[in-house]
Amino acid sequence: MPGPARLDVRIKQVKIGLINIGNELLNGQTLNSHHQWIARESTLHGWVIDHQQTIMDTAEAILTSLESTLNQYQLVITTGGLGPTSDDITRDVVARFFNMELEPDPVVETSIREYFSRRQRPMPESVLIQAQVPVGAEVFINRNGTAPGLALRHPKINSWLVMLPGPPRELHPMFRDQVVPFLQKVMPSGSGYVCRVLRTVGVGESRVQEQIEGKLADLISHGLEIGYCARTGEVDVRLATRDSAGSAIVDQAVARVHEIIGPAVFAEGEVSLERAVVEMLIRNGATVSTAESCTGGFLANRLTNVPGASDVFLGGAVTYSNKEKIRQLGVSSEDLETHGAVSETVARQMAEGVRRATGSDYGLSTTGIAGPSGGTDEKPVGLVFMAVAGPDGTEVFHRINTFDRETFKFVTTQQVLDCLRLMVVNAVSG
Amino acid sequence: MPGPARLDVRIKQVKIGLINIGNELLNGQTLNSHHQWIARESTLHGWVIDHQQTIMDTAEAILTSLESTLNQYQLVITTGGLGPTSDDITRDVVARFFNMELEPDPVVETSIREYFSRRQRPMPESVLIQAQVPVGAEVFINRNGTAPGLALRHPKINSWLVMLPGPPRELHPMFRDQVVPFLQKVMPSGSGYVCRVLRTVGVGESRVQEQIEGKLADLISHGLEIGYCARTGEVDVRLATRDSAGSAIVDQAVARVHEIIGPAVFAEGEVSLERAVVEMLIRNGATVSTAESCTGGFLANRLTNVPGASDVFLGGAVTYSNKEKIRQLGVSSEDLETHGAVSETVARQMAEGVRRATGSDYGLSTTGIAGPSGGTDEKPVGLVFMAVAGPDGTEVFHRINTFDRETFKFVTTQQVLDCLRLMVVNAVSG
Repeated sequence: MPGPARLDVRIKQVKIGLINIGNELLNGQTLNSHHQWIARESTLHGWVIDHQQTIMDTAEAILTSLESTLNQYQLVITTGGLGPTSDDITRDVVARFFNMELEPDPVVETSIREYFSRRQRPMPESVLIQAQVPVGAEVFINRNGTAPGLALRHPKINSWLVMLPGPPRELHPMFRDQVVPFLQKVMPSGSGYVCRVLRTVGVGESRVQEQIEGKLADLISHGLEIGYCARTGEVDVRLATRDSAGSAIVDQAVARVHEIIGPAVFAEGEVSLERAVVEMLIRNGATVSTAESCTGGFLANRLTNVPGASDVFLGGAVTYSNKEKIRQLGVSSEDLETHGAVSETVARQMAEGVRRATGSDYGLSTTGIAGPSGGTDEKPVGLVFMAVAGPDGTEVFHRINTFDRETFKFVTTQQVLDCLRLMVVNAVSG
Repeated sequence: MPGPARLDVRIKQVKIGLINIGNELLNGQTLNSHHQWIARESTLHGWVIDHQQTIMDTAEAILTSLESTLNQYQLVITTGGLGPTSDDITRDVVARFFNMELEPDPVVETSIREYFSRRQRPMPESVLIQAQVPVGAEVFINRNGTAPGLALRHPKINSWLVMLPGPPRELHPMFRDQVVPFLQKVMPSGSGYVCRVLRTVGVGESRVQEQIEGKLADLISHGLEIGYCARTGEVDVRLATRDSAGSAIVDQAVARVHEIIGPAVFAEGEVSLERAVVEMLIRNGATVSTAESCTGGFLANRLTNVPGASDVFLGGAVTYSNKEKIRQLGVSSEDLETHGAVSETVARQMAEGVRRATGSDYGLSTTGIAGPSGGTDEKPVGLVFMAVAGPDGTEVFHRINTFDRETFKFVTTQQVLDCLRLMVVNAVSG
């Protein structure tokens, strides 16, 4: 057996080749959500997608991709092309590739008939083509549709091919409830891959790398893998090892990253900054309100995207005009005149005004020039003042966020949410 | 020259092999949005993605995919791996593959330095590695980040390789403003496609198709191509021809679609509903304000995403609590008690209240149950009341939008924006 395959067995890692079949995915009509979903589910079982491709639903494209992928991966998963219509040819092409006969499966046929009778709908005879399965295949009955899933072991190559239906509400439960247990039984698998992801805010990707990488050198030499993923205004630090005995290394690395850039880490795993902030406020029994000019409601929107936000978010004002800043927030018209709407003074009065008006513990504000026009030499496009008013006083700061309008809003709300986060952290620890 | 390539030239169609590079895409940490975005943009120019793959950011994976893809496609596009960190190796690997030297490009270096100075941030020296470009490559300066895009023609195979940075806000404008015009110039088959896209709202995909297709049959027989693309709450109708001399057919088709489903068409091309609404208000010298409960600021956010919104949007209130509905909008506390916050009466009072308070011509409101919890038998999750108050009265309506929280906000704001749009259309024509 060649080297790489041996290694895979030793570290108990299944590498997956994923083939998404369908013109509607390829031409962009439908977003391919299968890839991310299957990748994330697989991670839970120590399996990784090593290669993913989207192909046309033609026999030629399916055969070409099967040939190259089955030779390279122990596990190949396909999605799509199992339905009853003329462009659903995956089952036929695969049977031909494996030199297997198709025969009607009575259990599948019953499940299809029951699917229609449960819904009290007439069954077109054509749908019974989905009961044709390759002889000897493992069949996964579809509880949320009609096309069954199928698993085949290639007679020569030591690889498994798993075929899944395209609709997500059919694929998801089938994969979780039937495919995973089946594969755990037939493939030498395990949890060989340990991975923890720390999410940071407020520090650039190169800067994060510069700060932590040198101090993790000893762990890297013992098999620690580090990856970075820059999102807008955030950097994810991925700490992993392929050796299950080395999970202590990952824990050590996580602890060290916390030591080095602690305050920048806002969460571990799939948690947005707004969720981290809302959950922190819930834990501390604190409430918040918002007064937005240049972010135009996006700050309130992010907070209210989090289920449970109604427990902490009291209300918000979107005050685009000076008149509304005065009316809703009690900003001084003299100060608006003297300093302008985009100023430290007005940001402070907005945050304190909305805190006072709603009776919340914290008040957030943004006032700036989102662009593309409206800038001056003294106050360029991108200049934004933000404030967080809290029980211990008000913090005001400014940034120059030179982005397109929507990114400007995202980055600005990142900064003010992060300021709130740090203020609450300090209030608790102080 | 073999048959298929000849055919491609005749029908002026470019087939693309797309390679998305990045472990964070492959392992599902980040959703691959590049594929759909590039596919949709390409459609406008008559180009199609024929194969897409996501690969690890290793030299081996990049080389393997380049070899097979460049041999098959006239145009290969890669995304990702152009940044400054150790896992950004696309540039190096491609230079090796093409046998080209990397040299610092002074224009790129200047653009990187300016990027940091504009933001008044210190520049880590390590980022200058992004100024290293293969000698002879076409360079696309990155106006929204630091890594430039690159285009190379393979010296032996007659194929172009275009490398794009990973972050969408960098990739999108670079592709539209620089890459498309460049490719239309250098690829003989890259131009000549005529395509117009009409955007509709409020009508389902099959209904749009049913209404227009029969009445376009004569144009279809003369080479008109029709495509549909269902987005959330919207359907795009794509009218195209591959014969540049046939652009009159497309114009005729557009005129006919306007005749058949006129009021449903809100724009042509890449125009969002909020942009169409804001531009319509600007044209009519009318102003608007918003009072949001369940959409939590997303309605104000959508309106203020449009440059120039400050001319028409006066202000908004995000009133999550009953107390704020009373305080900010003057909703009657008796009616809140009698009918509940999610009711026709309260929706009406919110819209009229915000219109009165801000002095705007139109006032919009939303009040509903976004979920996932909070529903009852009488008022289920997804129930939402909306109102538009205008100079000629107030329109109130309700829908049941059973979606996840963010889709709920999107669909609900679609419905209330469309109601405003039709009210303004009728006010002008009436």
